[in-house]
Amino acid sequence: MDPTMAAPKELDSRPMNDGDGANSYSQNSSYQRGVVEGAKSVIFETIPEKLNINLPKTFQIADFGCSTGPNTFLAMQNLIEAVMLKYNQSTQKTTTPEFHVFFNDHVDNDFNTLFKTLPSNRPYFAVGVPGSFHRQLFPQASLQIAHSSYALQWLSKVPPEVANKGSPAWNKGKIYCAGNEEEVTKAYFAQFKADTDAFLKARAQELVEGGLMVIQIPCVPNSEVLPSQIGAGLNSEFLGDSLADMVKMGVISEEKLDSFNLPLYLPCIEEVKMVIEMNKFFTIEKICTLSHPSNNNSTPLDIRRTCADVRAIKENLVKDHFGSENMDQLFDLLFQNYQKNQILFDKVARQDVYLFALLKRKGNI
Amino acid sequence: MDPTMAAPKELDSRPMNDGDGANSYSQNSSYQRGVVEGAKSVIFETIPEKLNINLPKTFQIADFGCSTGPNTFLAMQNLIEAVMLKYNQSTQKTTTPEFHVFFNDHVDNDFNTLFKTLPSNRPYFAVGVPGSFHRQLFPQASLQIAHSSYALQWLSKVPPEVANKGSPAWNKGKIYCAGNEEEVTKAYFAQFKADTDAFLKARAQELVEGGLMVIQIPCVPNSEVLPSQIGAGLNSEFLGDSLADMVKMGVISEEKLDSFNLPLYLPCIEEVKMVIEMNKFFTIEKICTLSHPSNNNSTPLDIRRTCADVRAIKENLVKDHFGSENMDQLFDLLFQNYQKNQILFDKVARQDVYLFALLKRKGNI
Ligand SMILES: Nc1ncnc2c1ncn2[C@@H]1O[C@H](CSCC[C@H](N)C(=O)O)[C@@H](O)[C@H]1O
Ligand SMILES: Nc1ncnc2c1ncn2[C@@H]1O[C@H](CSCC[C@H](N)C(=O)O)[C@@H](O)[C@H]1O
Repeated sequence: MDPTMAAPKELDSRPMNDGDGANSYSQNSSYQRGVVEGAKSVIFETIPEKLNINLPKTFQIADFGCSTGPNTFLAMQNLIEAVMLKYNQSTQKTTTPEFHVFFNDHVDNDFNTLFKTLPSNRPYFAVGVPGSFHRQLFPQASLQIAHSSYALQWLSKVPPEVANKGSPAWNKGKIYCAGNEEEVTKAYFAQFKADTDAFLKARAQELVEGGLMVIQIPCVPNSEVLPSQIGAGLNSEFLGDSLADMVKMGVISEEKLDSFNLPLYLPCIEEVKMVIEMNKFFTIEKICTLSHPSNNNSTPLDIRRTCADVRAIKENLVKDHFGSENMDQLFDLLFQNYQKNQILFDKVARQDVYLFALLKRKGNI
Repeated sequence: MDPTMAAPKELDSRPMNDGDGANSYSQNSSYQRGVVEGAKSVIFETIPEKLNINLPKTFQIADFGCSTGPNTFLAMQNLIEAVMLKYNQSTQKTTTPEFHVFFNDHVDNDFNTLFKTLPSNRPYFAVGVPGSFHRQLFPQASLQIAHSSYALQWLSKVPPEVANKGSPAWNKGKIYCAGNEEEVTKAYFAQFKADTDAFLKARAQELVEGGLMVIQIPCVPNSEVLPSQIGAGLNSEFLGDSLADMVKMGVISEEKLDSFNLPLYLPCIEEVKMVIEMNKFFTIEKICTLSHPSNNNSTPLDIRRTCADVRAIKENLVKDHFGSENMDQLFDLLFQNYQKNQILFDKVARQDVYLFALLKRKGNI
């Protein structure tokens, strides 16, 4: 029995907003939906080509960091369609597979909402898997495909140095890894490396030999660009500015703000490559950046929507640190900060890319 | 792809009380816990003897109708220990299995509470499976053991005739199948037969050949005893009396009460046998009644506890029909009815038995 199953308490989980109300993730995740939609064509191109395993009668797929839906349903649907292309090409014509789809997220994710909103005409058996994806969650060699969209940028914890005033990595004046302080970036990247490595080790246990892993995460377009120069970074930048506004207004203390940091890292493609290669269990079948579909759209970004998305994602994290009584004010200030910086934000966010990687589980040699 | 997966809306699901508050199932299910505890020894005797399959590296077990815990955790623990006895006897000594445990209940069961209270040192990978157990929930031949405790007495619906004033099966003056009206009993048993058959057909798809099925349900000790003469029946009887009290008090209308019936059937062992034999997919390896452990206990039954158990189980059903504003009053009246009938109830409930059945999936011939 794998000892990792004796799950440590997951202290650093701050789930997306639950339910399906006005501030919920399920109503406010259109940006992430764009990521899933944008990856569809590359998934249709690569999966049938790279899936070179004996096609099983039961095909098992897991989504790691699924939240409450609905994007995960679309992602799973796309994967199944791509896999069916393979089955239809196959000479083993008799096998019509049954799909078993496993939805994973932290134990405090709102699985009730996920389950209640499962598509009623889904062509698969659906299952929920609670627990951190940094450890093994499935028996050995039980999955054919693992998938994770917009989740691996979340770290298992804030690297302790960045909240420590005495440390050279102290993240003064920022609540995220903006990229302008080398020591801070180092500390954040070290955590990203350790977490992603743990993730890949766990998936390597769970995937069959030849099994595939799809990863999508926000990233900077290249190592010259700082996180603060992309939309995903600005979302954190403006949140920090809004908290700073609250310090000025005397609502929260400067110390409180100084001790707050987001467990979030926006890597560049080379960093992700390096972590995968270091890990050794996977070959990289494809790695690239994809442009977010909204970039092709000429209507101005809806900053109210962006603000609502950010709230659905980060409210639990900030609430935990600053108290729930301050949330409405904070997100009002955040909206004002988007308004003030609307032209900048629109220009920057329009160029946002995300990373797509397709990995294959090596044989054990 | 199995068409049954296009799940119909589960209209007749009324989950146990959610969360872990004062009225919750998780705090009020000690009676059902006794059932699980009481079956432990027969499980330890029968499972190692009857489990004659090639022992797989991943051993998959599902609990059907698990509710929010904690009894399901104990039940799964017992099964795993019993299976490990088999592995330890086996000559294939090298295989230490990994256990994958699937917790099933209706989609509106509170899985969040189930997940949050999973034992942290569990020797298995845990998964939640939403959906009615009257249809297939897993791929073909994917389970080694299926288990269901105190769930199969719940019908998918109240047989329509019993709520129909024009029908000979009209269940006048009762809210459950008390056993005193032949036509009513017939209608309820027909529904039980259809539901149990659907359950067994679905499990027959999911279990491997030679896979085992454990069933525990409340039952009458033999076909001479009426449901109204056992503890489980009296619980419904007193609930009906309390509703009748509310009619007298003018709180609810007589019509409202007349149109209410519990989707619940308490079979005798011969009826269960008949349904299993009719179904044909399983051999009966063992079927017997077991005495509830509390029967050996000489302290008087704690009727406050019984009343709380009943509330945790049936509140959603009554609330739906009579409105949530009447619940506190109803359960106060129920407690008074237990008080009035304490001596009778204590005597009767002390003799309660439940049915234990161990079935084996036949080969496809
Ligand atoms: N260590 C971890 N284990 C499991 N889930 C995690 C995790 N860290 C973050 N997550 C989850 O990852 C999700 C990111 S939001 C993205 C959700 C979904 N993939 C979509 O595209 O819409 C959150 O629900 C968060 O709880
Ligand atoms: N058709 C169905 N499909 C799935 N679960 C069902 C069901 N009908 C009833 N149930 C569930 O069966 C459970 C009965 S309560 C028993 C819970 C648990 N086995 C224990 O022993 O404590 C409830 O949670 C109820 O929601």
